[in-house]
Amino acid sequence: MSDIVREGDYVILYHSPNLRFLTKVEKGRRLDTIKGSIILDYVIGLEYGSKVKTSLGYEFVVTKPRIEDVMFELYKRPTQVIYPKDAAYIILKTGIGPGSIVIEAGVGSGFMTTFLAYYVRPNGKVYGYEKRPEFLEIAKKNLEKTGLLNWVELKLRDVVEQGFDLPDNYVDAVVLDLGYPWEMLSEIYRVLKHGGSAAVYLPSILQVYKMLDRLKQFNKFIDIEVVEILLRNWKIIPEELRPETWMIAHTGFIIFMRKPWNFRNF
Amino acid sequence: MSDIVREGDYVILYHSPNLRFLTKVEKGRRLDTIKGSIILDYVIGLEYGSKVKTSLGYEFVVTKPRIEDVMFELYKRPTQVIYPKDAAYIILKTGIGPGSIVIEAGVGSGFMTTFLAYYVRPNGKVYGYEKRPEFLEIAKKNLEKTGLLNWVELKLRDVVEQGFDLPDNYVDAVVLDLGYPWEMLSEIYRVLKHGGSAAVYLPSILQVYKMLDRLKQFNKFIDIEVVEILLRNWKIIPEELRPETWMIAHTGFIIFMRKPWNFRNF
Amino acid sequence: MSDIVREGDYVILYHSPNLRFLTKVEKGRRLDTIKGSIILDYVIGLEYGSKVKTSLGYEFVVTKPRIEDVMFELYKRPTQVIYPKDAAYIILKTGIGPGSIVIEAGVGSGFMTTFLAYYVRPNGKVYGYEKRPEFLEIAKKNLEKTGLLNWVELKLRDVVEQGFDLPDNYVDAVVLDLGYPWEMLSEIYRVLKHGGSAAVYLPSILQVYKMLDRLKQFNKFIDIEVVEILLRNWKIIPEELRPETWMIAHTGFIIFMRKPWNFRNF
Amino acid sequence: MSDIVREGDYVILYHSPNLRFLTKVEKGRRLDTIKGSIILDYVIGLEYGSKVKTSLGYEFVVTKPRIEDVMFELYKRPTQVIYPKDAAYIILKTGIGPGSIVIEAGVGSGFMTTFLAYYVRPNGKVYGYEKRPEFLEIAKKNLEKTGLLNWVELKLRDVVEQGFDLPDNYVDAVVLDLGYPWEMLSEIYRVLKHGGSAAVYLPSILQVYKMLDRLKQFNKFIDIEVVEILLRNWKIIPEELRPETWMIAHTGFIIFMRKPWNFRNF
Repeated sequence: MSDIVREGDYVILYHSPNLRFLTKVEKGRRLDTIKGSIILDYVIGLEYGSKVKTSLGYEFVVTKPRIEDVMFELYKRPTQVIYPKDAAYIILKTGIGPGSIVIEAGVGSGFMTTFLAYYVRPNGKVYGYEKRPEFLEIAKKNLEKTGLLNWVELKLRDVVEQGFDLPDNYVDAVVLDLGYPWEMLSEIYRVLKHGGSAAVYLPSILQVYKMLDRLKQFNKFIDIEVVEILLRNWKIIPEELRPETWMIAHTGFIIFMRKPWNFRNF
Repeated sequence: MSDIVREGDYVILYHSPNLRFLTKVEKGRRLDTIKGSIILDYVIGLEYGSKVKTSLGYEFVVTKPRIEDVMFELYKRPTQVIYPKDAAYIILKTGIGPGSIVIEAGVGSGFMTTFLAYYVRPNGKVYGYEKRPEFLEIAKKNLEKTGLLNWVELKLRDVVEQGFDLPDNYVDAVVLDLGYPWEMLSEIYRVLKHGGSAAVYLPSILQVYKMLDRLKQFNKFIDIEVVEILLRNWKIIPEELRPETWMIAHTGFIIFMRKPWNFRNF
Repeated sequence: MSDIVREGDYVILYHSPNLRFLTKVEKGRRLDTIKGSIILDYVIGLEYGSKVKTSLGYEFVVTKPRIEDVMFELYKRPTQVIYPKDAAYIILKTGIGPGSIVIEAGVGSGFMTTFLAYYVRPNGKVYGYEKRPEFLEIAKKNLEKTGLLNWVELKLRDVVEQGFDLPDNYVDAVVLDLGYPWEMLSEIYRVLKHGGSAAVYLPSILQVYKMLDRLKQFNKFIDIEVVEILLRNWKIIPEELRPETWMIAHTGFIIFMRKPWNFRNF
Repeated sequence: MSDIVREGDYVILYHSPNLRFLTKVEKGRRLDTIKGSIILDYVIGLEYGSKVKTSLGYEFVVTKPRIEDVMFELYKRPTQVIYPKDAAYIILKTGIGPGSIVIEAGVGSGFMTTFLAYYVRPNGKVYGYEKRPEFLEIAKKNLEKTGLLNWVELKLRDVVEQGFDLPDNYVDAVVLDLGYPWEMLSEIYRVLKHGGSAAVYLPSILQVYKMLDRLKQFNKFIDIEVVEILLRNWKIIPEELRPETWMIAHTGFIIFMRKPWNFRNF
């Protein structure tokens, strides 16, 4: 709590709810705002919670960023990501938590990876697979900014073609957000611990059909579920209390499955 | 992984997806199943993953329970609890994770508390307030079975009347599932760290109105949101793919709010 | 308004919201209720709105039934029917109204047929196709009770095999609730007037896929839409205002399509 | 079917799904399109279904408009109206159909009125109340274009202040879309026939509360229901079958109620 800002830290410089900046503290850098500039050199060595003044005399609080602040900064328009409503339910339902060993494929820009890394701390691990090098690079940068890269091992690999380079019965959970998850059933089964869970995220319903059809043939997973989650926001003005006019009606379908505890097939 | 079953442990004795038992391993106890009995004395000292035979010759695997298995056992009919779909989103949205210091009030039978304790491990803490001693007792037993009691400090206290017995700026998040949350605004504000979040769970829309109205008067929290989350299950038979006929259409509304980072009121 | 009850009429004998009977007025019949009996002979010749006394002295009002009352009586457990929420939208969206010439296939027990007949009055017509004679018989009885049989021509015919026995460009709308609607595209097209609409009701999403796929190949219909309608009931106790806990999450998907006005293909 | 276009008729001049015009046929007028112009004089006297050529040689079909075409033209951006999904359910649920006598208040721009008039034809009547003269004027023009003005009696009147100028027990149904419907309970009760239904459309949930509270005090209506209707569109490309990303999550809540058949209060 009496933490000191060090060079290289990401901090939030906070003036008001609508004027806050996530920035990396580096020598020789300056942050320019509509309320004036802040020389970042002066921030180094301050206690978190301290105030700094801009060139125009406005006060900003030096704040330690939290996961939600960083996510908010990094993914202002979170298209093509697993939405928080879905990410939250995937994590809870698969039992991913502190100490979990998790596979994620594909990583994309690292949005889901960030959540996973956040929850497996301090003694778990996320293996993040992605076949497109440019996305892996973006994900790496995003994870760095969140300070969560330590808990992630990013791997450039086409897992649909090549599988996971991990031992049998090794991971607690697998999260898949890629194109042909039904090609990976035996590989998911192999790598999961007994009792471990997988979650597969699929935008279109025909993909869900294909997945269910292959799961039925494969016939080894238990506790199969298909869900979709709808989040409805309400207006917050008391006298006008009603749901917002528009909502996101579809992000993706989630399929859950589990490797049973016993060791033979049945 | 090469863990040994000790007396007092909770284990799952697993035969098949529909025949599995969560039980405490105690000397002199016997588990009776439709496939025969198991003397629990013999389970002590076995490695997890070992098999035991029932009196009728059927094999059960001795399995280390995970959070979801225990939850499933403890709360088969989860009425009057914060549902997983809601719990998951509350946890993610408030940033509750490993190391978080969290208040929950009221605890009830401990369903939400279990999730919270699971996620703040290994170095966080949940302060669980409940004013009804009989519920506190149930919650204690449930948390014991999940092995998560270490991360929870249960407190018999009417917080609406007496507030929290915790210092200012002390907790990362507050989760409220009780009757008059609007009476607690200044107390929630006091106890939250700057940037900390609160989530309030309310079944009826008039309570939401009251809460929003008081939040508007109180005028110190930021990032206020009101949401409801709908989970729709689909049939998993591929050829009959369609949403299940019935769904739970309402559990509760969730109000999120946040204490801003700066230290004066505005 | 000064209508007289005639023999053979269906009337409602109404005591209270929860004690009301739909019955056919026939000589020599007696209606037995928990508040006593009513000899139906005495009802003949009364004005609608008159009161009759039971053998135990309780008063019942002789009421002219409306469509909703009869529907309520006939279909207390409306499984396997097109639900009112869906029926209403189908009717409005296809423009079915007074004077419309409409095809319905298959009729089933006549639930949707009843609505259609109700709305095409007094100068329209519903052609109701059904291949199972036992259902056609049930539908006929139900339509008789509603007094709407005059506007319906029921036809025993397997339209998927044999098509409609009606001229080209003849009907304003087609409503389909049967197994293989995609086999009927050219027949639907043939029988619709230019600008006419069809609505196809399908329980499973794979059927929707098949239909869309065939519509794409057929390539003659315009204004194609796929919708699902969700109806959420709220509790009506003011202080407990909130959505009902359970709702029907799925009845069927509705596909709308329209025959364009011009006469060549395009 | 062998109808002739007369001066003053509204027709659709149809070239393709995306190029169609609703227009009034008047002597001396010309319709300009991107495919050339059409002199409307030449359309008079043609049979519906005939083709006309534009100045550039493109063919348009002279089509008799249907209700949905006119609605589509008149209300391209249907903000602040009762949506079709809601209108359809209100009509079916209140039993409004051919021959019904209906009150609507307030009329607004006449969107709901149009539907009501369409369904009460040919022998019913809609009494449309509106207190703002400018809206009444717009509604009148819209109803004229749809050819449905004959079935509507528009009345400039503040019904919350002055009530309906209609006899007791006179109408089959009342549809309310105005600000203080709870002030009108005894007036709605008075004017409804026994067994008649009312539907009240309310955007905000606090209005629903107020309405339910007053209904409880008034204590004369039966069969009270509160519903909201959600319509979810799906993409129509077969291979990409999934719900559209965005949907309208809220239009309004609908409260239904009914005047019981018996004549005393209870």
